[in-house]
Amino acid sequence: MAVRNLEKSVGENSSLLTFDELCAALRAVGEERYHHKHPFHLLMHEGRLSRGQLQAWALNRYYYQSIIPIKDSIILSRGPDPAFRRAWRKRVVDHDGDGTPKNEGGIKRWLKLAEATGLDAEDVRAGTGILPATRFAVNEYLNIVRSRSLLEAVASSLTELFSPDLISLRVEKLRQHYPWLSGGLDYFEARMHQAPEDSKFATAYVYENAKTRAEQELAIQALRDKCDILWAQLDALYFAYVQPGWPPPGAFRMQEGV
Amino acid sequence: MAVRNLEKSVGENSSLLTFDELCAALRAVGEERYHHKHPFHLLMHEGRLSRGQLQAWALNRYYYQSIIPIKDSIILSRGPDPAFRRAWRKRVVDHDGDGTPKNEGGIKRWLKLAEATGLDAEDVRAGTGILPATRFAVNEYLNIVRSRSLLEAVASSLTELFSPDLISLRVEKLRQHYPWLSGGLDYFEARMHQAPEDSKFATAYVYENAKTRAEQELAIQALRDKCDILWAQLDALYFAYVQPGWPPPGAFRMQEGV
Repeated sequence: MAVRNLEKSVGENSSLLTFDELCAALRAVGEERYHHKHPFHLLMHEGRLSRGQLQAWALNRYYYQSIIPIKDSIILSRGPDPAFRRAWRKRVVDHDGDGTPKNEGGIKRWLKLAEATGLDAEDVRAGTGILPATRFAVNEYLNIVRSRSLLEAVASSLTELFSPDLISLRVEKLRQHYPWLSGGLDYFEARMHQAPEDSKFATAYVYENAKTRAEQELAIQALRDKCDILWAQLDALYFAYVQPGWPPPGAFRMQEGV
Repeated sequence: MAVRNLEKSVGENSSLLTFDELCAALRAVGEERYHHKHPFHLLMHEGRLSRGQLQAWALNRYYYQSIIPIKDSIILSRGPDPAFRRAWRKRVVDHDGDGTPKNEGGIKRWLKLAEATGLDAEDVRAGTGILPATRFAVNEYLNIVRSRSLLEAVASSLTELFSPDLISLRVEKLRQHYPWLSGGLDYFEARMHQAPEDSKFATAYVYENAKTRAEQELAIQALRDKCDILWAQLDALYFAYVQPGWPPPGAFRMQEGV
């Protein structure tokens, strides 16, 4: 299995990876299991999702968006010094905004995307009909940043290394195939410049604070686990709303013909 | 939606439920969302699962089994008095055993079931290839017993009200359709008498300690959430190994023709 090979290739000998080798190992995790390859995204980018399926995506993904500043606040609470906390608190601001229209924050921007799909923002915020599997996967992100080392908590954010490419493709494809969504894409525009800045800081932090190969491996594993969290969310969406089309008891149901 | 109706029927007026009404409300949750109705179980009971699919089930469900005594130890650590802890520690013993062949414990018995499907017990114990979605769902059970009230933690065990009927049917159907599994069914035989004793204690505890209707509702919701945890595990199995047959990166893969 590819995973095992990767684990072995970077795993069992004990020399510390250089900065470039560490970056390559992190990128290899993304190639293998970041959700850019997930069939739900492939369908999205081919224009083959219905409005109802995009609603299910926007609704469920909202739960993920809504916990990001909680996740980052946990990391903030574990931050060792003012410099780290100053750098990290930017993330909380990015998602929560400052209450002005100029900086409304990522959560509000995601609600606008959900509204563009035709959902009511208050229903989305209330979380009615979110898949249990979404909650479980997303809550695991909180478990990781609470219970593992700060190094691993920081490393788990590094899917931001991969998100700009995916977002850039997604924005192009959403505009092309679902032009009625075009008014709701501010979230992605903002992430295009936020994510590279964040991942640069986090990569440098991981490189500087992983003092042994074993610690580097823990950081790489945290990124792998984070990728699994993203992937599992799309698996759950695909299973419930694409094929065979089986939302669990209590979950959002697509309206006929939507 | 049925959920909403249930929530309304037992929810918004404020009179305390009698013992019988509480039991009926708990049973209604089971009718609606316990996993006895899940299509993966229906296929199992109709003899339509392959050996590979039963292996995937035994492997993934092992992760659930393995955390049960951890879950019960967390509840034990929150137990208010010796009488409660004496009653609850039975559960830890039931799953961990006492190291003798006479009482090998539920975890060991589940490993025997996994071996009967053709898996290697050490591989199962190592957890290689377990679906991330299984881990996320099961870990949520730990989140619940750690972070909610003791009342809710106890109430979340009450799927044991429903398990004897399911186990009794399952044992009959496994013997009928998969006779090669018959040597691995000790786990279920033991649970047939453990579960009723446990659920009797937990139901009485919930009735005596939920002092308001709002607390009764929290207990009922904890049971609903626990059902979602069981259901999500089968969704993940169905999606990865039945249809469309897509295990995520790194997960157990069925061998051809098994």
